[in-house]
Amino acid sequence: MKIGVDAMGGDYAPLHVVLGAIQALDSLASDSTIVLFGNERKIREICHPRQIDALRMEIVSTAQVIEMGEHPVKAFQQKKDSSLVAGFLALQQGAIDAFAGAGNTGAMLVGAQSILKTVKGLTRPCISAVFPVQTGGSALLLDVGLNADCRPDNLFEFGLLGSVYARNIMGIKNPRVALLNIGEEPDKGNMLTRETYELMDGNPSFHFVGNIESSHLFSGTIADVIVTDGFAGNIVIKQAEAMFQLLKDFGFGNAFFDRFDYEVYGGTPILGINAPVVIGHGASSPRAIAHMILKSEATYKAGLVQKIKEAISNE
Amino acid sequence: MKIGVDAMGGDYAPLHVVLGAIQALDSLASDSTIVLFGNERKIREICHPRQIDALRMEIVSTAQVIEMGEHPVKAFQQKKDSSLVAGFLALQQGAIDAFAGAGNTGAMLVGAQSILKTVKGLTRPCISAVFPVQTGGSALLLDVGLNADCRPDNLFEFGLLGSVYARNIMGIKNPRVALLNIGEEPDKGNMLTRETYELMDGNPSFHFVGNIESSHLFSGTIADVIVTDGFAGNIVIKQAEAMFQLLKDFGFGNAFFDRFDYEVYGGTPILGINAPVVIGHGASSPRAIAHMILKSEATYKAGLVQKIKEAISNE
Repeated sequence: MKIGVDAMGGDYAPLHVVLGAIQALDSLASDSTIVLFGNERKIREICHPRQIDALRMEIVSTAQVIEMGEHPVKAFQQKKDSSLVAGFLALQQGAIDAFAGAGNTGAMLVGAQSILKTVKGLTRPCISAVFPVQTGGSALLLDVGLNADCRPDNLFEFGLLGSVYARNIMGIKNPRVALLNIGEEPDKGNMLTRETYELMDGNPSFHFVGNIESSHLFSGTIADVIVTDGFAGNIVIKQAEAMFQLLKDFGFGNAFFDRFDYEVYGGTPILGINAPVVIGHGASSPRAIAHMILKSEATYKAGLVQKIKEAISNE
Repeated sequence: MKIGVDAMGGDYAPLHVVLGAIQALDSLASDSTIVLFGNERKIREICHPRQIDALRMEIVSTAQVIEMGEHPVKAFQQKKDSSLVAGFLALQQGAIDAFAGAGNTGAMLVGAQSILKTVKGLTRPCISAVFPVQTGGSALLLDVGLNADCRPDNLFEFGLLGSVYARNIMGIKNPRVALLNIGEEPDKGNMLTRETYELMDGNPSFHFVGNIESSHLFSGTIADVIVTDGFAGNIVIKQAEAMFQLLKDFGFGNAFFDRFDYEVYGGTPILGINAPVVIGHGASSPRAIAHMILKSEATYKAGLVQKIKEAISNE
């Protein structure tokens, strides 16, 4: 397979991206190659003295860069010769099989929705986060920021997307899906969660186990997939990041807490669009970039997009 | 002053409550006394062999108990001879100056709103949580669970209440008030936070400093008072509790993290009602109960209710 990477995306691009891509080659399948979109001269300088053409890597030369602070929609429309736009077009045309980038998140989402489009029958795509749980393994939280205002049917769809993701990427056979709420009983919560509970309860599309309070997020005893709106979800993951940073500042660490490090997960696929796209963290290190590329390979090889299409069309 | 305490409220009542009340006496002002509402025989048994009447404590004997799992409104209406209802009536009649309880939170809120009533001009009362920040001192988060669905004007009022609380109870001269959001820019967030930002920006009632992301909750560099709806606020505090518990499970601890322990704060006043009421944690230890009682004394002595009335009437 061919994995496209935005070499100009991220706070430390292109340096960290190119170094991360080289790191990733050690772990990718032997038939996987990387296509770097970006400034060819700069990319070759970073690779030097290695011969990039000997490395299972190609370069697609682009002249423009969408910067981190730019307005996503405007930048995407105006910078047609940017690494980010070129990557999305290549994915749409089938020249690459997946696309990954740690640049302007808004522009990545605009590209995904305007060029690749949302899967037919689905109302909205979303993004997710994976974090460690005390029973071992991981849990999935979604949406974590793409949809700040949601309706009950959006959350229902996130439950479906999360269930498909947990089965196919996380290897969980019958994922327990819970609704993030401020009480365990069905009638607890705000208008959104109370109505969503009714939609989810007893549905045959995924294994709904009820409400989960945030005090149980890391326990692993209640759920594998936790559904919430993009506002609450974004607050949860940024608070977890803040706590992880506090622990690092105080010199605390162990195998469990180290798994909160986003470097290990590398990136999150946009769930519910017609091709595999993975978004990395803006501050990505080479190691984080390598994991973002590996996540793209795993997403493609698991046939996630097709599995999501099937799940949606069965609704 | 006379501090009323629901001796039958809490998972370990009346034992922990009575022991906590005895502990509190060491730190209360010499003219402060405690009035315990509950089963007189049980209370005297726990005090034994101390003579309760020698301890600056009184007992108001009640026959009924509102249990933790009971429906708040029904229980409050039906159990007229419960310790909880008797406490609220005593506060309303001026027989005590403040009331504190670690029992059924819903019933405490029903009592506050139905007997004491919301301050004139205020739309809704709320509850808050205090947590440590890295710059030293503490920050205040509100609402943390009383109002799951909010309008922009509710959040505006929480900013006002939080500002008065931070000034009078936390000793912060010109509290910085921020809006919890999923981005720093004014146009970020959901419909609620975008509209609330416009209401708060440039208002003369409190010192609004803009949006705060949850990654900065514990930094202390941006805000002293953080405003959010009761859904997001409840998720934040329960996630912080979960993290604190994880740290304890792993044997991590230091002076900073120990301040996440709710025992130190003891309880949270209901902000925006016509008399001082403090709610404690259901699982309160004697130490937590003692701090809940001290918080009631501090709330009364700071004249918080009067200060809130003045702030609201100036709007």
